[in-house]
Amino acid sequence: MKKIKVVQWGLGNMGRGMVEMLLTKEGVQVAGAIEKRVTEKVDLGTFLGKEVLGIPVHSDAERLLDEVKPDLCILAINSFAKGVVEEIRLLTKKKVNVITIAEEMAYPYVTEPALSEEIHKMAVENGVTVMGTGVNPGFVLDTLIIQLSLGVRRVDHIFARRVNDLSPFGLTVMEEQGVGLSREAFEQGVKDGSIYGHVGFMQSIPMIAKSLGLTYDEIRQTRAPIMTAVRRETKDVVVKAGMVCGCNHTAVALKDGKPVITLEHPQQVRPDMEDIETGDYIEIHGDPDLSMVIRPEVPGGIGTIAAAVNVIPHVINADPGLITMTDIPVTHAIMDDFRNHLK
Amino acid sequence: MKKIKVVQWGLGNMGRGMVEMLLTKEGVQVAGAIEKRVTEKVDLGTFLGKEVLGIPVHSDAERLLDEVKPDLCILAINSFAKGVVEEIRLLTKKKVNVITIAEEMAYPYVTEPALSEEIHKMAVENGVTVMGTGVNPGFVLDTLIIQLSLGVRRVDHIFARRVNDLSPFGLTVMEEQGVGLSREAFEQGVKDGSIYGHVGFMQSIPMIAKSLGLTYDEIRQTRAPIMTAVRRETKDVVVKAGMVCGCNHTAVALKDGKPVITLEHPQQVRPDMEDIETGDYIEIHGDPDLSMVIRPEVPGGIGTIAAAVNVIPHVINADPGLITMTDIPVTHAIMDDFRNHLK
Repeated sequence: MKKIKVVQWGLGNMGRGMVEMLLTKEGVQVAGAIEKRVTEKVDLGTFLGKEVLGIPVHSDAERLLDEVKPDLCILAINSFAKGVVEEIRLLTKKKVNVITIAEEMAYPYVTEPALSEEIHKMAVENGVTVMGTGVNPGFVLDTLIIQLSLGVRRVDHIFARRVNDLSPFGLTVMEEQGVGLSREAFEQGVKDGSIYGHVGFMQSIPMIAKSLGLTYDEIRQTRAPIMTAVRRETKDVVVKAGMVCGCNHTAVALKDGKPVITLEHPQQVRPDMEDIETGDYIEIHGDPDLSMVIRPEVPGGIGTIAAAVNVIPHVINADPGLITMTDIPVTHAIMDDFRNHLK
Repeated sequence: MKKIKVVQWGLGNMGRGMVEMLLTKEGVQVAGAIEKRVTEKVDLGTFLGKEVLGIPVHSDAERLLDEVKPDLCILAINSFAKGVVEEIRLLTKKKVNVITIAEEMAYPYVTEPALSEEIHKMAVENGVTVMGTGVNPGFVLDTLIIQLSLGVRRVDHIFARRVNDLSPFGLTVMEEQGVGLSREAFEQGVKDGSIYGHVGFMQSIPMIAKSLGLTYDEIRQTRAPIMTAVRRETKDVVVKAGMVCGCNHTAVALKDGKPVITLEHPQQVRPDMEDIETGDYIEIHGDPDLSMVIRPEVPGGIGTIAAAVNVIPHVINADPGLITMTDIPVTHAIMDDFRNHLK
């Protein structure tokens, strides 16, 4: 059997990480990459500042897809369904399965019902599968909560909190979180919608609720700036003392005024600079109560990279259509040949 | 659509708990129960010491199955594949899907390869699904570990430890663990095989290894008595001070002499009597390291009851055959109508 041919679309921080991970894995090959910043065809190795790999990088997606004819593409260019739909249209037309880390695509049915239906049709008509995943949404604040609930007879309230380091992410995510702004600019950004905070609550909450059969009347969100007392620096940004280093974004699903699902996600760059302990916390209140702690948190960058790469065989195995992490068998790390996991 | 008809086979501690849980759930009905201790037909409510439910309990399995024609049976009578195979033969012949908490059935392929093949054939020929589950094996020391590994790029060593309270279980499990014996009788029991300890390592380790593509040369197990300094009492047993209150059972899968998967499972009745903290601990050492703690542990009794009941729709949805928890989509609590989860 031939190796699984993967094209990486988007070579930002996440995309580069996925390529590097794929290069260490058996039974799967990086057949090419698509990156809009590349004006002419270059070698992926050269692009990454390493030895020549003989793997093409184009900005012309259609040309590259026709040239390498991949089985699957990992799409890492944007957080929103609207920001990836044209790419998904092209990929499905070319009969390519799609994994995307666009956060909204982890469960796009509530925020983009018409687009979800359209993407589902594109996938079904072309016999391929489209799925969104990543560390969150896709894993920590949804799939893992859903899985933990197996051990309980009754769920009254789910409370989960992910305190993480935002540093591994690139500028797309930094801008969504308002990193580097003044408090005033942050608050203005929240008002005008330019600061979104975490893209994921409107995905994770409906995904949990649908899986467990919980209902709610409304979801209330709050977004507050996290201010830094010290200078914090990452590969991509510098935040001066007194400025915004992240966003404390929370969401609660209420039923008859009572919380059913509460998710908190204070994200900031370099929490270590002020000795802030990171971690993932899941509490299921019900019969019985369960309390899970992962400390430090599943790292945001590596977790997203790992999730996107590790689900490759599951996505290829799945029935055609737009699916979510709850439609496929339990997902996991893969240490052997990826082809061993194909049906 | 009619309610999902379930027959409970075995009304020990676990079976009673499953019936009680099922009676609180929507879209699923307890159609009958099979219990060998019942000499004539009785009412399930009467058997449980509650109001009459109008649900028959027989010792004659075939008669009961013909009478109620269930969609699915939960089999809770024995820990081993050999101890449930004849029941599974009858159930599959009657076109009944099977969930069993027989620990060995969570992944019987290694310890009972021929029997696994036979059960798989029975299931396929009759168009039904057979799956083993429970809190462990089935959830904490396998499915949950597998799911957590999604967030890592590379796995070097998995270390997990489940420190739990054995009290909710019935005599079958107590005898397997040597509860109530002297140290000498325990050690003799380990030698002659009458004290097995935890039935699950030879299931969980191969299940994890298969999922993640890890290999090992051998599995080494140790079984040591846990002695109590105080009197410990449960509904089913009394352990005097100085006697065995549980078994510290460990297993390690070695590759080239190095541990790949290490599972520790010290189980005892009433750990609270000596202020022993219970919990589930999962460490994945690799890239990156991840460390998860659930404290107190997912309760053994309730966890097994919940797991067996919560997977009902997934098992009905699955393709015919002998399957495991890794063959079905992520499993979870169900708070709405069970029929909403049927495909």
